[in-house]
Amino acid sequence: MKKYYEFIPVSGFKAAGVYCGIKKDKSKKDLSVIYSETKAVSAATFTTNKVKAAPVQINMKNINNDNTQAIVVNSGNANACTGEKGFDDALNMISTLADELNLSPDEVLVASTGIIGVPMPMEKIIPGIKEAASTLSPIGFEDASKGILTTDSSTKTVSVEFTIDDKSVVISGMAKGSGMIHPNMATMLGFILTDASITKKMLQKALSDSVSDSFNMISVDGDTSTNDMVIMLANGKSNNKIINMDNGIYNKFKAALDIVNVELAKMIAKDGEGATKLIEVNLSGGKSKEDAKLCAKSIITSNLVKSAFFGSDANWGRVLCSMGYSGGDFIPEDVELFFESKKGKIQLVKNGVGLSLDEKLAKEILLEDYIKIIVDLKNGEYSAKAWGCDLSYDYVKINASYRS
Amino acid sequence: MKKYYEFIPVSGFKAAGVYCGIKKDKSKKDLSVIYSETKAVSAATFTTNKVKAAPVQINMKNINNDNTQAIVVNSGNANACTGEKGFDDALNMISTLADELNLSPDEVLVASTGIIGVPMPMEKIIPGIKEAASTLSPIGFEDASKGILTTDSSTKTVSVEFTIDDKSVVISGMAKGSGMIHPNMATMLGFILTDASITKKMLQKALSDSVSDSFNMISVDGDTSTNDMVIMLANGKSNNKIINMDNGIYNKFKAALDIVNVELAKMIAKDGEGATKLIEVNLSGGKSKEDAKLCAKSIITSNLVKSAFFGSDANWGRVLCSMGYSGGDFIPEDVELFFESKKGKIQLVKNGVGLSLDEKLAKEILLEDYIKIIVDLKNGEYSAKAWGCDLSYDYVKINASYRS
Repeated sequence: MKKYYEFIPVSGFKAAGVYCGIKKDKSKKDLSVIYSETKAVSAATFTTNKVKAAPVQINMKNINNDNTQAIVVNSGNANACTGEKGFDDALNMISTLADELNLSPDEVLVASTGIIGVPMPMEKIIPGIKEAASTLSPIGFEDASKGILTTDSSTKTVSVEFTIDDKSVVISGMAKGSGMIHPNMATMLGFILTDASITKKMLQKALSDSVSDSFNMISVDGDTSTNDMVIMLANGKSNNKIINMDNGIYNKFKAALDIVNVELAKMIAKDGEGATKLIEVNLSGGKSKEDAKLCAKSIITSNLVKSAFFGSDANWGRVLCSMGYSGGDFIPEDVELFFESKKGKIQLVKNGVGLSLDEKLAKEILLEDYIKIIVDLKNGEYSAKAWGCDLSYDYVKINASYRS
Repeated sequence: MKKYYEFIPVSGFKAAGVYCGIKKDKSKKDLSVIYSETKAVSAATFTTNKVKAAPVQINMKNINNDNTQAIVVNSGNANACTGEKGFDDALNMISTLADELNLSPDEVLVASTGIIGVPMPMEKIIPGIKEAASTLSPIGFEDASKGILTTDSSTKTVSVEFTIDDKSVVISGMAKGSGMIHPNMATMLGFILTDASITKKMLQKALSDSVSDSFNMISVDGDTSTNDMVIMLANGKSNNKIINMDNGIYNKFKAALDIVNVELAKMIAKDGEGATKLIEVNLSGGKSKEDAKLCAKSIITSNLVKSAFFGSDANWGRVLCSMGYSGGDFIPEDVELFFESKKGKIQLVKNGVGLSLDEKLAKEILLEDYIKIIVDLKNGEYSAKAWGCDLSYDYVKINASYRS
């Protein structure tokens, strides 16, 4: 299984990314189109926020058709809290792209990200869709991965290449997400393409299970957005024997998908607004999977933990405290806690009690930009991983002035 | 009913606050004692965090005795995650004070706040307790209210004076809390004294119900602490007819207690670490009390909302978004939203859709330091209030460097 930190072309898919004027900065891109030459099997996860943007509500219906061939995405405007006009605009985006590509509107999905509550500048978006549709190319994915970004500092793309029955299969993914990233669903935009042959049921199962352990285990600021979704399309071009049950081949496919989603999730966590560090929680010894996940997510979401890591302060009490209010079950008196980075590993807590600390080594470890918080609950065999970032001055600065 | 922003002496109670060396800064106080000359009726609410500091665990037992006469509190060290030694230390604090005041240890409660996981400096604390016990005075409450503070910028004291059956009754309260303040219980230290005559059952009911609408409706950073508690003592000195049922007199007492607790809660929210603004959520039209509270609390907890207010940015989309993931039920298409300060009131959302905005007026309103977020869910008759603060550079600065 080969992993690439770029978007490897997937046979049968094309893409384009253009600038159409939604963003102020003309050097950026703000509209992307992804196209499958043939009807693709589709799966998706959507935001659990009760306030759902128009594109989310439309896709939740259209995803049930098994005939997706295109996705249109804009950045810079979320088309959320925009009322009936917002719905009309999203449907207009769909029908414009459908017309350009000779598709039926129910074969097109739509996504938006950006500021909430501002009417969509359709006079810019419609020409943008036409331009993107006319420039679709198998090597257009780099541009497309730019067109979905908002406050992200870089594109997020990962691909995995592997074989099923001697057939080469590719899974390639792109994602965006910087602020407003919190474990509770597909908390960002993600588009995953594969040439594998798989049934809709098994594709949805693979995506849902994988998202639950990747995108749903990251947190930048605890806010769940109105717009976020992960869409996956599988066009079957690799001609492998169709994956239609939970067997060894499915497991291989799922393992490859997990790599793509976990790597994308880590990129999002690391690129959290204002982040200076990627923090990974590596929790074991949970009584149940749910307890392990609750504890791991709570650590990564705590503002006090995040602030301490920004300051490279070995304030382990906050880690225990955040598990304590997580709702996850554990025995405080059993907990072991370590911090680890490439500078070394240090134990801070044994049997729930703080150990005397080598402050110099702790500081050295915490000054690194990729830090693992290792927790052993010593209470069972379940584990969970979660990813997040520190809370910095720049997070506040970005969010005090930028309406996203 | 008269309200005072100071701690009015309550007949039969004495207090003292001293510096014993737990904090580095000698100009501060770090140990307080509160004493009732006679046995008092007691009530309390404790942290819901699974990781409970030793003093919390001990008080949870001792509060069941109906004979409390003294409380010893230290600041600067939380005595949390300190293992068996921590328990011994807390019991030692109790027995030292009991000896000084000729009480039985089960007549004494104990509280600690400060850094987690560091052994208590008992060689400083024991002399401190003795000094405080020997300087108890009816006018010692100002010093006592200083001895319970950590990163607080000022003392927090409120008193209410009223009559029951022509008897004058006083309820006086002091609180501390700056970071780690989140709605989920008594998320701070609070000590409320009254000379009213009331049964233990009705005192506990009044305190629990009042805390639920005051201290549990504030949020500074979403973190629930290991140590926090509110303790209330009633010594009956006012000689009113005993409050022993849910009647008009109880309601009058409860209304007075609500004033004390809400004002203290607002002081805590306003003094949140790094806060520049007090934000009040005033939510009406909820389908149920629970839905109203969930929505109000979620708004005040959102980092994105907090950051926007720090920047005086009328980013109302984040308010709707935070209600959307609150778990509270409402119909997004019905929501009305206003911002208000002494500079005026502006409507931002009608029927769930953003209105065109007078940006100049919005900015003027939001530049004030006390802002109301007024939400009407138009879905029922239940309402809720919540209080919080903005998220500033200084929050991050304080928490990146100070271990509390």
